[in-house]
Amino acid sequence: MKLYNFFRSSASYRVRIALNLKGVPYEYVPIHLRRGGGEQYTPAYKALNPQGIIPTLEDDGRVLTQSLAILEYLEERYPEPALLPRDPADRATVRSMALAIACEVHPLQNLRVLNYVKDVLHHTEEETNAWGRHWVTQGLTALEQMVRAVANRGAFCFGSAPSLADLCLVPQLVNARRFGCDLSACPTLVQIDATCCALPAFADAAPENQPDAE
Amino acid sequence: MKLYNFFRSSASYRVRIALNLKGVPYEYVPIHLRRGGGEQYTPAYKALNPQGIIPTLEDDGRVLTQSLAILEYLEERYPEPALLPRDPADRATVRSMALAIACEVHPLQNLRVLNYVKDVLHHTEEETNAWGRHWVTQGLTALEQMVRAVANRGAFCFGSAPSLADLCLVPQLVNARRFGCDLSACPTLVQIDATCCALPAFADAAPENQPDAE
Repeated sequence: MKLYNFFRSSASYRVRIALNLKGVPYEYVPIHLRRGGGEQYTPAYKALNPQGIIPTLEDDGRVLTQSLAILEYLEERYPEPALLPRDPADRATVRSMALAIACEVHPLQNLRVLNYVKDVLHHTEEETNAWGRHWVTQGLTALEQMVRAVANRGAFCFGSAPSLADLCLVPQLVNARRFGCDLSACPTLVQIDATCCALPAFADAAPENQPDAE
Repeated sequence: MKLYNFFRSSASYRVRIALNLKGVPYEYVPIHLRRGGGEQYTPAYKALNPQGIIPTLEDDGRVLTQSLAILEYLEERYPEPALLPRDPADRATVRSMALAIACEVHPLQNLRVLNYVKDVLHHTEEETNAWGRHWVTQGLTALEQMVRAVANRGAFCFGSAPSLADLCLVPQLVNARRFGCDLSACPTLVQIDATCCALPAFADAAPENQPDAE
C-alpha cells in the first residue's frame, strides 16, 4: 500500500491516523505542495489523481482518492478497530461530524483556496488569514454543539474510542491554531484533541513526525 | 420522515433524489435560505442543526445532518436500489466522485460563501460569479477525467445505474449552468446528466418541481 501525501496536509493526516489505528503498513510517498509550483500538478501525479490534490492511496493496483472515501475503504477492508459505530443513525452522526469538517471547514481554508484569495482576489496576507480564521472558527463552533449533543458521549467525539470524526477533528485543530483561531468556545473539542494526541496512532501521524517534515 | 430543505439547495436536491429512488415517502419542510435573513439561522432550526445549513433529516426521533451522511444512512436503512457498488475499491471510487463535488466544488460556491466574497471581501457581483465559476469548472473538469477512467462504465458515473456520484453530479450541473460555466470539457458529465434527468426520481427532485419553488 502506497500513500501519496504531504506532512502538513490535514486530509493526508486523517488517512495516516486510520492506517496507524488499524495497524496497516504503508509506503510514504511525499508530494510537496509548494516545491516547483506544486508536485501535485505534475503530469505523473495528475495521471493518478486528476484533481491534483492529496492524498492518493494505491492498493492492490487500485488508485483511490478523497480522504473520506479512503477512510471508508480502510474501514471496509480492515474492520478492526472500528472507526464507525454499528447503528445506522449513530454512523450518520459520526459521518456528519466528519463531514462538518471535511465539507464546511477544510475546503475553505486549504492552500489552493488561500492562494486564490491572496493572488487572484488580491487580498493581503492578513485578510487571507482572516478568511481562513472565519470559516474554521464558525465550523468548529458548530461542531462543538454537535459533539455536546451526543448522549453519554465518552472521551471522544462519539463514544469511548476514536471514530472518523476524531480523525477529521485533530488535523483541523492543527490548522485552527496555525490561523490563530480563538478556541474558547470549543472546550470539548480541545479536550478530545488532547485525548487523541496522547495515543501513539495519532502522535505517529502528526505532521512533525513525518519523513518530509520541514 | 421529515426533510428540512430548500428547493434550490443542491445538497437538499441530492437527498431528494435518493429518497425518490428508494421510494421512501417524506414530509417536505421548506427552510427558506434568503427570507428574513435566512430561516436556517432561526433558533428553532439551529437547535436541530447547529451548523445552520440544510438539509436536515428527521427519522424515528433521530436528527441527521450533512447530505452525504444522510445518503449513507438511507443506503444502510433502505439498501435497494443500491447507490453504491459491492466491491470496497469500487465503493471508494464512487464515494471519491461524490466527494470530488461535495468537498472540492460545492463548499466553495454555496450561498454563504458567495455572500462572504461579495459582502465581506467587497467584490462585485461579476467577481463573485467568477469565483464560483472558477471552482465549479475546475472541479467538474477533474471529475470528467475520473469518470472517463472507469473501465466499462455504463450510462452513469459508475456502472449502469445511478450511484451517489450521480446524485451529487446532477445538482452541481444546475449550479454550473447558473454560473455560466463552460462545460465543453465535460461532455461525459453532460451526457450522464441528461440520462439521469430523464428518470422520474431525478425529475421529481428537481428544484423547479418542489413545493417552495419560486
